[in-house]
Amino acid sequence: MGKRQFAVIGLGRFGTSVALTLAEMGFEVMGIDRNEELVENVKDYITYAVCADVHEEKVLESLGIRNFDVVIVAIGDDLQASILITLILKEMGIEHVVVKAVNDIHGKVLEKVGADKVVFPERDMGMRLAHYLARANILDFIEISEEYSLIEAKVPAKMVDKTLREIDLRSKYGVSVLAIKRGHQVIVSPPADQRLSASDVLILVGGNRELDRFSRM
Amino acid sequence: MGKRQFAVIGLGRFGTSVALTLAEMGFEVMGIDRNEELVENVKDYITYAVCADVHEEKVLESLGIRNFDVVIVAIGDDLQASILITLILKEMGIEHVVVKAVNDIHGKVLEKVGADKVVFPERDMGMRLAHYLARANILDFIEISEEYSLIEAKVPAKMVDKTLREIDLRSKYGVSVLAIKRGHQVIVSPPADQRLSASDVLILVGGNRELDRFSRM
Ligand SMILES: Nc1ncnc2c1ncn2[C@@H]1O[C@H](COP(=O)(O)OP(=O)(O)OP(=O)(O)O)[C@@H](O)[C@H]1O
Ligand SMILES: Nc1ncnc2c1ncn2[C@@H]1O[C@H](COP(=O)(O)OP(=O)(O)OP(=O)(O)O)[C@@H](O)[C@H]1O
Ligand SMILES: [Ca+2]
Ligand SMILES: [Ca+2]
Ligand SMILES: [Ca+2]
Ligand SMILES: [Ca+2]
Repeated sequence: MGKRQFAVIGLGRFGTSVALTLAEMGFEVMGIDRNEELVENVKDYITYAVCADVHEEKVLESLGIRNFDVVIVAIGDDLQASILITLILKEMGIEHVVVKAVNDIHGKVLEKVGADKVVFPERDMGMRLAHYLARANILDFIEISEEYSLIEAKVPAKMVDKTLREIDLRSKYGVSVLAIKRGHQVIVSPPADQRLSASDVLILVGGNRELDRFSRM
Repeated sequence: MGKRQFAVIGLGRFGTSVALTLAEMGFEVMGIDRNEELVENVKDYITYAVCADVHEEKVLESLGIRNFDVVIVAIGDDLQASILITLILKEMGIEHVVVKAVNDIHGKVLEKVGADKVVFPERDMGMRLAHYLARANILDFIEISEEYSLIEAKVPAKMVDKTLREIDLRSKYGVSVLAIKRGHQVIVSPPADQRLSASDVLILVGGNRELDRFSRM
């Protein structure tokens, strides 16, 4: 496939971040907001930056939105605009419409009107921060499934200078060490005689309950 | 240590998500907002829900904020309030003050006035979504370091029904398979004769450039 083209409608903090990151990766990106100042902010970094209110099909049409493979709708406060624009984009035949939702009901309505993917940035990052704060030694985590997660964790004090064989996380805690992050280096599938140091970061996978137990150590 | 107590100031989408997640994990959580409606929303789910404008030390004092181990300041639009409250909390001696920032400058000022951790929910989720969209077969990713990431990826069509030995990702692409997600099951450190199926999800680690190459396949 050729380089995909992306359009971002709504250049708040989330939309701006999506647009700038895609542009930095080398994609063609059009950014649209009705607020001139926000358009000015990004205009030197993305392919097209347009100041327009896009609540009508003819406006979207005139911006050539049909040529874009993926359109991201990143409007938070005006739910009606977010829903209406999503509906219009799907009716125009845009293949991938990704929409930011602010709560569950908003998300459900967006799916009903045809959104291909609904994202909840504040809710998801709130959950991530809560997990990080709750588990004293956890640095980051990904939910792999409802039951399993993958976490980055500090080495608990009592495991420093021990080998993986000695601490035996798999049978004692039910979690597995996938890799060890040591400075800029990543030791993938570390051998059993690998010794841990205090500044290492462990990448672990396991059941949520087991990871919880490990992280409260 | 005993159960830590958390206070969340600002119950917008992000603050609400942090408060509800911590409460669900069993922590004591106080939530504060000057908007009555937002306080009502959470009051049945957290330990204390208070409607107050907390821009002055005496108000924070009267809420007993000194008893909390961690205070999260989740105010986005009113930068002055966010900065002032952070400053007051640190002057009161709160040990962990975590603050939401809306851009780099806001973040720098927050660090200067003593914030222990600054988070950028919209910026970070925007970057995550951009990565997800850019790499057609990537489902999620964690940046492990500036050079290495960990990704969840679909099995490229040409690798379906092959064994790990046959596809030999390590030498052909420079990426390693840490685990395979198969329905609700997670196969950790899969053996070389493990055969991939179309619905599997691969958990891979590698250099960003190598992962990029893999994901554009
Ligand atoms: N009909 C519209 N046409 C063009 N732009 C719009 C329209 N409606 C809203 N916007 C723009 O969308 C942007 C994002 O909307 P809003 O600020 O409500 O979302 P938000 O969820 O608070 O954003 P964030 O949290 O990412 O900063 C705003 O800059 C606003 O000007
Ligand atoms: N001085 C204050 N005292 C108490 N609450 C406050 C104060 N200032 C702001 N708030 C509350 O903080 C909440 C979050 O602020 P705001 O909506 O500006 O942030 P936001 O970044 O847009 O939030 P989100 O994107 O998470 O929804 C609001 O509900 C607001 O009422
Ligand atoms: Ca806004
Ligand atoms: Ca907002
Ligand atoms: Ca927001
Ligand atoms: Ca807001």
